[in-house]
This record gives sequence, C-alpha cells and structure tokens, in this order.
Amino acid sequence: MRISRSRAGELAGAAPIFVLVAPQMGENIGAAARAMLNFGVTGMRVVAPRDGWPNPKAAAMASGAGAVIDGAQIFETLDAALADCAYVVATTARRRELALPVMAPAEAAAALHARVARNERCAVLFGGERSGLSTDDVARADAILSIPVNPAFASINLAQAVLVVAYEWSRASDTVEMPAGDPLADEQPASRQDVAYLYEHLEAALDRAGYFFPPEMRDTMTRNLRVALTRAGFTENEVRSLRGVVKALDKKEDRA
Amino acid sequence: MRISRSRAGELAGAAPIFVLVAPQMGENIGAAARAMLNFGVTGMRVVAPRDGWPNPKAAAMASGAGAVIDGAQIFETLDAALADCAYVVATTARRRELALPVMAPAEAAAALHARVARNERCAVLFGGERSGLSTDDVARADAILSIPVNPAFASINLAQAVLVVAYEWSRASDTVEMPAGDPLADEQPASRQDVAYLYEHLEAALDRAGYFFPPEMRDTMTRNLRVALTRAGFTENEVRSLRGVVKALDKKEDRA
Repeated sequence: MRISRSRAGELAGAAPIFVLVAPQMGENIGAAARAMLNFGVTGMRVVAPRDGWPNPKAAAMASGAGAVIDGAQIFETLDAALADCAYVVATTARRRELALPVMAPAEAAAALHARVARNERCAVLFGGERSGLSTDDVARADAILSIPVNPAFASINLAQAVLVVAYEWSRASDTVEMPAGDPLADEQPASRQDVAYLYEHLEAALDRAGYFFPPEMRDTMTRNLRVALTRAGFTENEVRSLRGVVKALDKKEDRA
Repeated sequence: MRISRSRAGELAGAAPIFVLVAPQMGENIGAAARAMLNFGVTGMRVVAPRDGWPNPKAAAMASGAGAVIDGAQIFETLDAALADCAYVVATTARRRELALPVMAPAEAAAALHARVARNERCAVLFGGERSGLSTDDVARADAILSIPVNPAFASINLAQAVLVVAYEWSRASDTVEMPAGDPLADEQPASRQDVAYLYEHLEAALDRAGYFFPPEMRDTMTRNLRVALTRAGFTENEVRSLRGVVKALDKKEDRA
C-alpha cells in the first residue's frame, strides 16, 4: 500500500516513537531531539536517563527542537516504556544469541511504515553512548535495525544513529521521485527547433570563419557539433543566450 | 549488468571524493572524516580551510579516522580542487537562480555510482558551517544533492550531511545496475579543466566582442554560461572541437 505523498511533519503524529535507553549526557539527548526533528519525527521517550529529568543541558542543546524535549515521556524501565507499543525495532549490531530478524535501515523504515499504516504504535530503541543496548534490552524488540557501517571503523554516535533512522523513515514517506522545486522543472527545455536555429546560425558563422577544413571532413564535423549541442540539453534561456554568443562573435568585419 | 555485492571499503578507492569548501572549525573537519569512514569513504579534499593546514584539532577529532585527514588534499580554490573531476554534485538546498537538476540523496548516490562505474572521478561538495556553499561554488557543479529536511526545522550540521551522503553511497554499493549499451561508455568525458579552459577562452572572446552588457549583468551572464557548458556533459572530443569553434570565431581583427 503506497502512502500518499506527505511533507516532513505531516506524518509526525504517526511516526515511530524514538526511545533512548539509559542515555548519559544531556547534550546528546538534545542532539538526538534535533536529529529527529530534521526529519519530522517528534515523539521521544527516555528510559532511566543517567542524570535524571528534566535535564537543562538537553533542553539547551535541543534549542529550536525544544518541543521534542518538552514532550518527551520518561520511564524507569524499558518494559514500562514499551507497554503500549505493538512493534519495536532495536538499533544495534546484530546479536548472534538472539533469534531476531536483522534489517537494514531502509528495510526497517518500510516495515515500520506498514505497521503505522495499520495503526500499530511503533518504537525504535537507541542505546546509551557508552555501550549501546544491552542484550536484555534488545530481547524486548521484534527486530533489529542495523546500520551497515564499515567493520573496520564504526563510530556512529547516538544523534547520528537517530539521524539515519529518522532520515530513512522520512524518505520512505515520499512517493515522488524528484524533490519538489527542481529548477529544471521550471526551466523550459529548448525545443528541437530552437537548437536547430542555434546550430544553423553557428554553422553559417563557422563557414564564414573558414572553420570547416578540410572540406571532406565537413559532414563529420557538422554532425558532431549538432550532436553535442542537442545532447547538451540546454534550456530555452540557455539557447537564447548562446544565440547571442554566436551573434556577438560573428558580428565582425568580413575577412579579407 | 549487475556488479556483485561489495562490503563498505571494497569500493573505497572508487568512492566519490568529499570536498569540504571553506570549512571553519578543525573539530568539524575531523568529525566529517569520521562520518565518511563509517561508510568506507576515504578521499577528502579541503578548499581554503579557515584555520590553515595541517590542523591539529582536525587530526585529534578524527582520531581513528586519522588516515582520512592524513590523506586529505588541500587546495586554495574550488576550481583547482575540481580540475581532475568529471562529475560534481553540490550538497545544498536547491537554488532557483541556477539551472541545475536537484536530486534526493539516494538518487544522487545512484547517479554517482553509474559515473564511478564508467571510471569518472566524482566529487561531492559540502559547504562551511556558517553559510554553506556559495552560489558561485554551486555553479561549479553538475547537479545538486538536497537532503530533504523538515522545512520547519532544518539543522543538519557538516558531519551529519557528510554522514547521510556517505551512508547513501554505501547503501547503493550493495547492488549496482549498469545501463546496457551506453553509447557514451567509449567516449572520455571532458575533465573539468578542459571545460574551464574552453569557458575562459570563450569569456575572453566575448569580452573582446562586447557581449557582456550591461556591466552589472556580467556576473550573472558568466555564471549561467558556465553552468550551461558544465551541465552539457561534453566529451573530451567535443570540448576540443568547441575550443576550435571559439578560436575560429574569435580570430578576427580587433574591433575599432
């Protein structure tokens, strides 16, 4: 089922809840809030924050994303935070000891969208800065979302993990290929006739300049020039400018 | 033709070069290096870093990603940084005044992969922390990559933008579709340096011809001409021919 096109924010009410499990630094909680709001995700829950709640550092770092912090729900245990959730995804590396499906972020976003579309409350878990989610935490999830990082260098921090997941959630919300406002969509492509006029004008000027030499190469040279100008994909405005370019260079005394 | 699955890092030699244009804080350069290496992207170029080079804060922040910093190439101008690049994508919001296609990150990653598969050196531009890429910077690109952030709250920082683009590059590495029978596969695309020489030659000839009028329009006219010639995607042979075209039309007596 394709969800109709939505702008970031419209689905905010239905977006998964992002659950920070035992986060440590307030600044990181604030940064996570900002990362979420960049992609229209607003629902945050925090489980057993190390420095308690409210946390002025979280609010300060969140800054313009303060509404996410203000609306955050705080819980003492992960079970309490997930009590009303139907589908839970844990953001972590795969765990050999748990028989859970592992999904890439895009796959997880699609799965979450399907659940949200069926009105199931969804949650995505993120672990604390030091050691991530414990195995007991992950065991509360229905699936694992694993961000496919370089095995030789994996250093994504909390806000960055939140960013990637929120980005993929938002990306899966769009069904349109091109982002709105493609400036070439407003630009009129040059018609074949426009390009033909430009080309003919150029060819005439080049004939006057003695460019096509030797004569037996003329057909090949003109053909290649025409291909170059056509394949260039100039806009109407560009062809108009290039006509002026040719005219300016051509507007000289006849040669001796 | 499908390229077999690769792990992050295997294609690292072929990944696009990430170009930081006028970055300010060393810590952010180091954070960008870490973000890149998470997804197997290792090639960094830095243009006119505010605090010079080397930058101990960049190295310190990069930490385990220090190889990216050590291998970074430094340039005084963006043109110099892009001279050997065939395809350039600017990470920025769309610009109404430039006739450049706008792509979402996944789309841009696919386009970059296709180019890399044809052995074209690719670059992705990222602007400085304060004001991002200037319009003149973006005018040097073939296309814009726009991360579709919440219009009501857009606060992605440099390292986060780098992360999202590197992530999408890596995600698209898993299977790459190669278009069959691409007629341009045998043609060498013109290097940026080639196009720059053509453009400069043309601009000089147009100055002699008095084309740029009125004077206050000159910057806009030159920028649009440059965009048209870059976006055209001319081959090496075509640029060579067009140099001859400009030379032929310009080779006249000086005007009175």
